[in-house]
Amino acid sequence: MRHFESLHQFSVKEIMEMLDLANHFKRGGAPSFKDSYAANLFYEPSTRTKNSFMMAQHKLGMNVLEFDVDTSSVKKGETLYDTAKTMEAIGADLLIIRHPDDHWADGLRNGIGIPLINGGAGKVEHPTQGLLDLLTIYQEFGHFQDLKIAICGDIAHSRVAHSNAEVLQRMGAEVYMCAAPGFEDLSLPIPYITIDEAVNDCDVVMLLRIQHERHESHWQTSSYLEDYGLTKAREKQMKKQAIIMHPAPINRDVEIDTELVECQRSRIFKQMENGVYTRMAIITKMMEEWRISHATAFEEHEANSAHRAIASL
Amino acid sequence: MRHFESLHQFSVKEIMEMLDLANHFKRGGAPSFKDSYAANLFYEPSTRTKNSFMMAQHKLGMNVLEFDVDTSSVKKGETLYDTAKTMEAIGADLLIIRHPDDHWADGLRNGIGIPLINGGAGKVEHPTQGLLDLLTIYQEFGHFQDLKIAICGDIAHSRVAHSNAEVLQRMGAEVYMCAAPGFEDLSLPIPYITIDEAVNDCDVVMLLRIQHERHESHWQTSSYLEDYGLTKAREKQMKKQAIIMHPAPINRDVEIDTELVECQRSRIFKQMENGVYTRMAIITKMMEEWRISHATAFEEHEANSAHRAIASL
Amino acid sequence: MRHFESLHQFSVKEIMEMLDLANHFKRGGAPSFKDSYAANLFYEPSTRTKNSFMMAQHKLGMNVLEFDVDTSSVKKGETLYDTAKTMEAIGADLLIIRHPDDHWADGLRNGIGIPLINGGAGKVEHPTQGLLDLLTIYQEFGHFQDLKIAICGDIAHSRVAHSNAEVLQRMGAEVYMCAAPGFEDLSLPIPYITIDEAVNDCDVVMLLRIQHERHESHWQTSSYLEDYGLTKAREKQMKKQAIIMHPAPINRDVEIDTELVECQRSRIFKQMENGVYTRMAIITKMMEEWRISHATAFEEHEANSAHRAIASL
Repeated sequence: MRHFESLHQFSVKEIMEMLDLANHFKRGGAPSFKDSYAANLFYEPSTRTKNSFMMAQHKLGMNVLEFDVDTSSVKKGETLYDTAKTMEAIGADLLIIRHPDDHWADGLRNGIGIPLINGGAGKVEHPTQGLLDLLTIYQEFGHFQDLKIAICGDIAHSRVAHSNAEVLQRMGAEVYMCAAPGFEDLSLPIPYITIDEAVNDCDVVMLLRIQHERHESHWQTSSYLEDYGLTKAREKQMKKQAIIMHPAPINRDVEIDTELVECQRSRIFKQMENGVYTRMAIITKMMEEWRISHATAFEEHEANSAHRAIASL
Repeated sequence: MRHFESLHQFSVKEIMEMLDLANHFKRGGAPSFKDSYAANLFYEPSTRTKNSFMMAQHKLGMNVLEFDVDTSSVKKGETLYDTAKTMEAIGADLLIIRHPDDHWADGLRNGIGIPLINGGAGKVEHPTQGLLDLLTIYQEFGHFQDLKIAICGDIAHSRVAHSNAEVLQRMGAEVYMCAAPGFEDLSLPIPYITIDEAVNDCDVVMLLRIQHERHESHWQTSSYLEDYGLTKAREKQMKKQAIIMHPAPINRDVEIDTELVECQRSRIFKQMENGVYTRMAIITKMMEEWRISHATAFEEHEANSAHRAIASL
Repeated sequence: MRHFESLHQFSVKEIMEMLDLANHFKRGGAPSFKDSYAANLFYEPSTRTKNSFMMAQHKLGMNVLEFDVDTSSVKKGETLYDTAKTMEAIGADLLIIRHPDDHWADGLRNGIGIPLINGGAGKVEHPTQGLLDLLTIYQEFGHFQDLKIAICGDIAHSRVAHSNAEVLQRMGAEVYMCAAPGFEDLSLPIPYITIDEAVNDCDVVMLLRIQHERHESHWQTSSYLEDYGLTKAREKQMKKQAIIMHPAPINRDVEIDTELVECQRSRIFKQMENGVYTRMAIITKMMEEWRISHATAFEEHEANSAHRAIASL
């Protein structure tokens, strides 16, 4: 049985099914998981991901156990595994986890008997953000084939860049990266372009946040907007149908001119809205996989019994 | 469309309607907003206001999104506007906000497309507390006309004093203030009296809390009770039907002798109980104002369509 | 009317009734308290007790008010009594309290008009943990009579040891203690044995956590497991049906070898699961006692009225 750890795990067909399910929820559809319990374990600050999961869980009729790390036994040194196992033992049906360790899932994958959904792992994975970004692009263009997409900003410290680049390529898009000196990650097989090339040529300009809290020294931001960010002048160079995206929180007037945050091209708040429907789709998929699997096991058993009954005639 | 920012915005007639609605809720009435979502954004500590809003929301059948500032992207520098806009984007229908900035609503008023209710703004406004105080007085006396009301204590640092003084006068009451040296706010057009005059002459002695956390230096409280507070001796001087109020938290034996907190005249815990019904009334009023408006917009559109249909015949 | 402060308050018959009720809930039974409000006031970190109460309350259909001490008026110096009284005033029907003061209940017992349940009092009481431990033993052996039970570890700083020892003896068990030098509490009338005697002779080896956060100096843990803890070698010495218990959080490889945490004898995560059903039983018992009492008071009043009516004929 698989957890929701990374978009790498899912085929293009499965991803399209999740996007269609999210659109179905956006039009008002909703299954009910009313006797189910979700627990949200966030070991790092979050506004969008945490509240968006909470909203998705409410809309699916789930009961929500808000786990507060700061007032928990984590303060007494309890491990992530023991905390997760505790939530399972007291009756949680689903765990959402965000944790600063890049590889936290390694220690939990086999021991926890309920589905885990990755709400952020260190600086390498943030697959629910990746999927909501895909949904936003899909709603806009109706496909991914040959779309030119520039991922711009603090590539080195972004879990969104890493999540998104691989999957966008698999969906058929042409992906480019764009970063200030020191913000590149040259280990990824993606061509780099300048911000001016990005605004001139791309259908999607996907900005990333400068992760001040992950930088050793404070980045000098005074000229960042002018040199590498999305200024009002650059926005004017964008193609007619091109859109602006940003996972937020935004550093206003650093990555983007504050006046562009809610401009006509911006899909920033639409991404947040889509996050709820995307997470409803992901939760539904995981709940069904774990249940269908149970059902399948049961059906196989039934089928085998029938087979034996016939054989014994 | 207006938000609930201050009692200044509401006419005497509107205030009386809210008080009657709160009394209706106290007798057991309740509308259902069961598919609605309320988000509570408290940037300052709160027990009564926060839990009272949560209780009011539960009793109205709303879903509650508890927003925890300490584990949110506020830690990454996200602005109040972006946080509020995020909650709107993910589907909140209502925001309750407490924030230390006196004028936080200025930056949100026009950008946020759902009703905001002020749960406390710096040291100038706390209108839901003001309305629950009015409800408590109204339940006691059945009117406000010519009631003598003394607001006593740390006037300078109290958002309750400022909220209440103006509205009580508009409702017809005679308002007095009473403060230790340094605790006055002489910018308000309200006469000052001594604590002994207050207890002898007034129908309502409304005590305020000394805001230790807002004072630069620690106030010497050893003789405060005896000099300026409500002692047992002063309580004996009060008129037969006069009542004691305090917004809490109480500094026991500073503003009031600890033995008077639950005495027969005290309405302190009744104020808290009234807070729930008052906030149910305020939420209902705001939800209805915003929906009626939507309905009206829709009806106008329908009417216009009908008009055009007729015109085209 | 009594609160749920300690297992000392309850007779063997009452304890057996609560255990049977918990087992009833485990099999799927549940009363509904759907218009009731529970407030959880935790002044110390907790994962199991807090989330387990929350789950129990959800399963009983109660509305849950999560009280966050860190963002409450406790920060402004509000007392536990005033905070609890506030929650009562705004409509809570039930309070769960954990507080570092050994005797916090003394100041609340008579003033608070709704049932209090002790979720942990300093280092002396943790009665809901005690009852879930009893449930786990009862499920295993079907009785308590003559069971040999060793409570092993940091006796001096454990509220579980103190809660459990007395009640286990009353239920008919033979209780022993086992502690490293400095971890004993010689004020208790319980015989001490070594860890090797415990594993050889006892039906239940109940490990306690070393309370690092309550020790003045940091305990040298390097050789603790070998000298006083449950090693794999010691586990092999245990009797065939003997079980291992631990209230958690666990210090892995200190009190117990990490590989034993989920071994076949371990009931550690089963204890957590039982905690939910135990707390459902405790809440139900308290709610019924307080309501029956109200009903009784009402019935007595009715009966008295009838009596007077007859007398006046």
